[in-house]
Amino acid sequence: MEQLIRQNRSYRRFYQDHFLAVDNLKYFVNLARLSPSARNAQPLKYYISNDEPVNAKIFECLSWAGYLKDWDGPEEGERPSAYIVVTGDHRVGDNFYCDHGIAAQSILLGAVEKGFGGCIIASVDRQKLREHLQLEQQLEILLVVALGKPKESVMLDNIGKDGDIKYWRDDKRIHHVPKRQLDDIVINFS
Amino acid sequence: MEQLIRQNRSYRRFYQDHFLAVDNLKYFVNLARLSPSARNAQPLKYYISNDEPVNAKIFECLSWAGYLKDWDGPEEGERPSAYIVVTGDHRVGDNFYCDHGIAAQSILLGAVEKGFGGCIIASVDRQKLREHLQLEQQLEILLVVALGKPKESVMLDNIGKDGDIKYWRDDKRIHHVPKRQLDDIVINFS
Repeated sequence: MEQLIRQNRSYRRFYQDHFLAVDNLKYFVNLARLSPSARNAQPLKYYISNDEPVNAKIFECLSWAGYLKDWDGPEEGERPSAYIVVTGDHRVGDNFYCDHGIAAQSILLGAVEKGFGGCIIASVDRQKLREHLQLEQQLEILLVVALGKPKESVMLDNIGKDGDIKYWRDDKRIHHVPKRQLDDIVINFS
Repeated sequence: MEQLIRQNRSYRRFYQDHFLAVDNLKYFVNLARLSPSARNAQPLKYYISNDEPVNAKIFECLSWAGYLKDWDGPEEGERPSAYIVVTGDHRVGDNFYCDHGIAAQSILLGAVEKGFGGCIIASVDRQKLREHLQLEQQLEILLVVALGKPKESVMLDNIGKDGDIKYWRDDKRIHHVPKRQLDDIVINFS
């Protein structure tokens, strides 16, 4: 698990031509399906796409890497080859708790195990995406998981003394992510 | 991953005497630490316990298995041998998004891989738990992950035609969990 979780970085540049089959996407959704759900309500529904024109429409609705001010997101050729849009069905209930977090982590770990990678994106033009995908009103867009064959290196760094958690890219385009240390997040043991 | 995720059921009865070391708990928290966090803010802090008197105080604050009306939770001898209390630190931010879902899934998958198991509990007397653990006011209790060596069998069933998602126990005390099928949760493919 530790190896898989370490490999599971938020990748934002991909080999866009690397195909991701619908069966792969269904396999990932199945992992989410088998994951815990608050009160076992299972309110989540998933829209999947590995289709270039649909992907382009989804891409249009996403904001990428807020801390990288001089980067608008992956350029053509480095975009995700697939997406899983995670929605919450209000016919089931109005509180989705943290089900979408559980589901997204299962999806990403499955993707990494199969040699892919992805990124959870919550900064989404939900109105536009709903129209593009013709989603029913009862389905609330919770987040989008972008998927593909990663084309970038992501390094975990220790957080600096200034406590800055903003990720950044070095001149070799390696993406650096400052992480708090274990002693800083365990309250009662050091 | 699929095998691990299938094994990762919500266990609510344990071999209470089966010891879970602090190093194990730290290993699980480390998996959460290395997992995605919205905007990389990493607002979560963790209180861990494998200590019987503290465990008893935590147990007192939990409500178990809402759908099992004739069961008040595990009896003495079948209670969790450890807990990870997941809190959100308001000094970091006031929105924890679904970070605690991501973290809890990483913790549970790590636990299952090591031969343990657990249950995410969100029905918590937060006021009382805060007092018991003497948590700072800035730390909001988000959920409690109960952990131990599972002592029960959990079966995944297909959801019936009535759509009932309530889990139940049969007369052999096997815990049954009705799950929606893949075709019912993938919006645009069947």
